[in-house]
Amino acid sequence: MPESQQATPPVTGSFQLRVRYVECDPMGVVHHSSYLPWMEMGRTELLREAGQNYAQLEADGVFLVVTRVEVKYRRPIKYDDLVEIRTKVEKSSKVKLHHSYEIVLVERGGETSEQVCAIATTELACVGEDGRPRALPGWLGA
Amino acid sequence: MPESQQATPPVTGSFQLRVRYVECDPMGVVHHSSYLPWMEMGRTELLREAGQNYAQLEADGVFLVVTRVEVKYRRPIKYDDLVEIRTKVEKSSKVKLHHSYEIVLVERGGETSEQVCAIATTELACVGEDGRPRALPGWLGA
Amino acid sequence: MPESQQATPPVTGSFQLRVRYVECDPMGVVHHSSYLPWMEMGRTELLREAGQNYAQLEADGVFLVVTRVEVKYRRPIKYDDLVEIRTKVEKSSKVKLHHSYEIVLVERGGETSEQVCAIATTELACVGEDGRPRALPGWLGA
Amino acid sequence: MPESQQATPPVTGSFQLRVRYVECDPMGVVHHSSYLPWMEMGRTELLREAGQNYAQLEADGVFLVVTRVEVKYRRPIKYDDLVEIRTKVEKSSKVKLHHSYEIVLVERGGETSEQVCAIATTELACVGEDGRPRALPGWLGA
Repeated sequence: MPESQQATPPVTGSFQLRVRYVECDPMGVVHHSSYLPWMEMGRTELLREAGQNYAQLEADGVFLVVTRVEVKYRRPIKYDDLVEIRTKVEKSSKVKLHHSYEIVLVERGGETSEQVCAIATTELACVGEDGRPRALPGWLGA
Repeated sequence: MPESQQATPPVTGSFQLRVRYVECDPMGVVHHSSYLPWMEMGRTELLREAGQNYAQLEADGVFLVVTRVEVKYRRPIKYDDLVEIRTKVEKSSKVKLHHSYEIVLVERGGETSEQVCAIATTELACVGEDGRPRALPGWLGA
Repeated sequence: MPESQQATPPVTGSFQLRVRYVECDPMGVVHHSSYLPWMEMGRTELLREAGQNYAQLEADGVFLVVTRVEVKYRRPIKYDDLVEIRTKVEKSSKVKLHHSYEIVLVERGGETSEQVCAIATTELACVGEDGRPRALPGWLGA
Repeated sequence: MPESQQATPPVTGSFQLRVRYVECDPMGVVHHSSYLPWMEMGRTELLREAGQNYAQLEADGVFLVVTRVEVKYRRPIKYDDLVEIRTKVEKSSKVKLHHSYEIVLVERGGETSEQVCAIATTELACVGEDGRPRALPGWLGA
């Protein structure tokens, strides 16, 4: 059956980033709002690993809007830390995608680490160019 | 009794802001991460209405760190919209503060409105300069 | 002739803002990149004072893109400072606009001030929806 | 001669980054303020290539503050573009550092490129923990 042969996106992926100075606040740690763009990058990279491209998706009139986000911050992250964003597709419906994330410190000041500093979940909805809900592309939704 | 005469911070407060161009993304709407600094401003203004000042609090060695945030996005907000941030202290313990928020569109393109575009909650913990948990100042905690 | 009586935009304007925590960095002062959105807000408010609206301008297919920016930082600005952005149209041609700015500290910790903390200039070019140069609307250009 | 054996920082360096969605604005291109953190990252990486670390520098009480920035924007950069930041130490005195930058598009939508999209210069001053000017560390200044 052709459907069963269709490529499905990987359900997990990860990438690393170096913390920017501008992402930190007067407490000397990463501002809590800076984690959200990292999670967005995690979703972009997850798509890329699946051979897809979010920029192309938008060019095709498919937009993914964040409808819910929850982050639990456990340990501070600092400027110049090397951090790994681990992203997982938890479930998907015809119109919604659910991801979970681990934000892991992997290196600080030359010392390797493996500390989960934050965990998070998001819910995304698929909308068209008019902003109205539409079905996810078949390879993305369920 | 002096304790009963002590000023308690107001449990609700609100302020308005004009949406910045830089806060919006290629979809033409406010990026979901931009809401978090608005909520932080809501907490700052709530303290100010209580005659307190977060900058002074930090100078006194009292830091409030966000340990959890949840936002539910219902309707898009756009560049130049006038938005009201309504902030409420939901509960407080000796070491933690819980707030809730409504992000309300009050004017778009000259038309007044009263649409709740997002609702949110946060949990804050009190730490000292060493980053270790400490009790909230009496007037702030419970 | 009515056209000659048409309102011209004011060449100077100002507005005040309260510095956000997220705009500050680990040095405890406003990050140098945070000044640029303030200057953008200055231009937005200057248009508004002229009875115009940048959101409407974009809806009409007129986009103003920044082609050059220069900022000289003289004194640090801090969290919760009250700052005034003074914006001035220096000159305009058929396709370009030149502004200058003063970023002035007006209140810190309850004390009023009048310190110029930064000065800046920008050059903007007018482009259409296709990204190609086009003439500024008559009331805006020269 | 000891002087000739002393490690001098490389005068040029480069690194690549993938443009984030949050860095783009409603025009669908990178917001002009987003370039400044990239240039800051360029300086951080230049130090790292010299075996130094800006986080350590601050821990040692040496702070580099931006006193002037100028950016000339030539061509728009878009979401998901791969960009190379080329950073060069132009000159240094006892208390100031001058850098220049090229922001180069190297890949868009799978197509390689070599387009200079922006050029920039910055001036940095060295200050101590008290915010007062101090001499640059010998290996960094001239």
